[in-house]
Amino acid sequence: MAKIITLTTDFGEKDYSVGVVKGVILSISPEAKIIDITHQLQPFNLISAALTLKNVHNYYPAGTIHLAVVDPGVGGKRKPVLVHTEKYVFVGPDNGIFSWINEPGKKVIHLTNSKFFLNPVSSTFHARDIFAPVAAYLSLGVRIDEFGRPVSKIVKLRLPPVQFTKDKLFGEVINVDNFGNLITNIQPEKLKNGFKRIKIKGRKILNISQTFSNAPEGKILAYRGSAGFLEIGVNQGSAAKKLKAKIGEKVEIEI
Amino acid sequence: MAKIITLTTDFGEKDYSVGVVKGVILSISPEAKIIDITHQLQPFNLISAALTLKNVHNYYPAGTIHLAVVDPGVGGKRKPVLVHTEKYVFVGPDNGIFSWINEPGKKVIHLTNSKFFLNPVSSTFHARDIFAPVAAYLSLGVRIDEFGRPVSKIVKLRLPPVQFTKDKLFGEVINVDNFGNLITNIQPEKLKNGFKRIKIKGRKILNISQTFSNAPEGKILAYRGSAGFLEIGVNQGSAAKKLKAKIGEKVEIEI
Amino acid sequence: MAKIITLTTDFGEKDYSVGVVKGVILSISPEAKIIDITHQLQPFNLISAALTLKNVHNYYPAGTIHLAVVDPGVGGKRKPVLVHTEKYVFVGPDNGIFSWINEPGKKVIHLTNSKFFLNPVSSTFHARDIFAPVAAYLSLGVRIDEFGRPVSKIVKLRLPPVQFTKDKLFGEVINVDNFGNLITNIQPEKLKNGFKRIKIKGRKILNISQTFSNAPEGKILAYRGSAGFLEIGVNQGSAAKKLKAKIGEKVEIEI
Repeated sequence: MAKIITLTTDFGEKDYSVGVVKGVILSISPEAKIIDITHQLQPFNLISAALTLKNVHNYYPAGTIHLAVVDPGVGGKRKPVLVHTEKYVFVGPDNGIFSWINEPGKKVIHLTNSKFFLNPVSSTFHARDIFAPVAAYLSLGVRIDEFGRPVSKIVKLRLPPVQFTKDKLFGEVINVDNFGNLITNIQPEKLKNGFKRIKIKGRKILNISQTFSNAPEGKILAYRGSAGFLEIGVNQGSAAKKLKAKIGEKVEIEI
Repeated sequence: MAKIITLTTDFGEKDYSVGVVKGVILSISPEAKIIDITHQLQPFNLISAALTLKNVHNYYPAGTIHLAVVDPGVGGKRKPVLVHTEKYVFVGPDNGIFSWINEPGKKVIHLTNSKFFLNPVSSTFHARDIFAPVAAYLSLGVRIDEFGRPVSKIVKLRLPPVQFTKDKLFGEVINVDNFGNLITNIQPEKLKNGFKRIKIKGRKILNISQTFSNAPEGKILAYRGSAGFLEIGVNQGSAAKKLKAKIGEKVEIEI
Repeated sequence: MAKIITLTTDFGEKDYSVGVVKGVILSISPEAKIIDITHQLQPFNLISAALTLKNVHNYYPAGTIHLAVVDPGVGGKRKPVLVHTEKYVFVGPDNGIFSWINEPGKKVIHLTNSKFFLNPVSSTFHARDIFAPVAAYLSLGVRIDEFGRPVSKIVKLRLPPVQFTKDKLFGEVINVDNFGNLITNIQPEKLKNGFKRIKIKGRKILNISQTFSNAPEGKILAYRGSAGFLEIGVNQGSAAKKLKAKIGEKVEIEI
């Protein structure tokens, strides 16, 4: 069965980077099945990359290789790594984008064996020179300990924490999706004993909806998003536009 | 031969939705050949989705499964369906996006058999929970009547109708393509007895061109578009920008 | 082994063009492996298309068919061609986009055999009617001389030339990538005897950096880009935005 290699990057699709990465993979591993997850991550946004990987990786079959590159520190001191788990292998820079992969049997390898790199390795495009060829050789069955030395841990990002007082909870918007829905850092389970109101940008929301179509068209609503966080949306509209809200926007809940 | 599953959505590529849908498909049907048609449909625009499917579906080989999701009513009362024809199967919400599939032997199945869904089914992401797994099981050869009950018809959209007077014809722009060409609801066959002028945004066009390069660079022209409608374009430019015209813009033709 | 057909276009992904091209290919050659390089080239920008092809094509395995369509002259006098080299075949309009393919054994065929076209051929969409079916038949092993007549040469674009005076060198920005990096027409090798300063938009840059992370966050820097040209970037930012610079912007170097 053809090995799946997924691609998750902030490269955009205006220039040649994505095409080069695919070509490098296919030159080494012509039967690999390349699947685009996204190339439209916000440039340099590590939290957005880490959330995407968290939300996507485990929908793929065991054996999938997830190649992910959001790499503001390319050419600097951050390590190129692979993260091996029972079901998957992740390949990319060790800058936090693999923070929220909760898979059993995690092993991390610092990629140091230049036998599996393009030669020479540039200082600006490690996706081409290191990560793509490593993913391709993995798909051919090269054992993970051939790629370098085990290291004991990876860089971990932290979500901005939710703050509590006696009767309030303070969260914030950590991502905005394609429809303008605002993903917060608040887990709806925290609200299972009820709450009075959710406040964002001076607007009040009084309950958590089950579906978008519960709310009238154009109405703001709160709901449990498919990634498990509280989200703020607008039925058939964009909450980001309607509320002029971005990543970092404060959300206050009276409990 | 690997079954082809095409994807047509308004999900954009900034977040994880497309990657999740592909993962669900490949987990069930690892050999499926996933082909992106577009994920950049205008959010919630059913006419644009229906036109895209109309214009694309029959270029694919018999046996192709077309998965299409523009779904403003997700979680509400609209039915999840598959539409089976002699050559293709279409999977998605029954909200009009399959209106203009003119294929012989049409059968419609209301998707009710949760054996072929992810479990639980969310109220916000049926592409992941219902449509992707159904498409994947179809690609494995599951028979269509196993997915649910036949229903007699699907929701039909109507294009805004062209209006006639004795000496005039009134149409409108129903879509804008990537180059800024304006696709109207007017069929050029209606003008085969000749016409005096086409008017849009105060500009006049006196004839129908065969090719873009017939017109000087930057000049507005009318032509028969590749989808069979009259289109307004600009040689090496954007008619949408030049005329500041959007979907809904009126077009008047003196005959 | 499945033949690879890559796609490089300015079609964008909002409408049905890309989906149609893929369908035409798969209807003729169901086992072809279609790889998207980009559909987001700047509309009608031949230099950008030619640079992308130059920078991408040779990362692919021998036998790859590169289908490329940026085609402002569609329906006019420019010839549809295939360019055959020892390792690759390129298919598209003869308008300069294949200018910088430096591969040995180049042969050019003017595509005239309508047996390998869709019928009828429209005057607006040769990617669907000519280039996609030709690429598909090539992937099935049809010999190149069956597609038409050999021609002796292709249209060549010229990069805007770098100008020299005794103590200065004048170049310009020829492309802007997804991160807002400015790609110039200047080859860093020209500066190997040293230089005093690089000037762009009134800003001065005093040396060539090895990596982005050499510069403080937000700082402008110059470096050798992965395509071999001098580039101007900003560490973790966009030089295009910071300098309000576009394609055509002048760059002056005192040597």
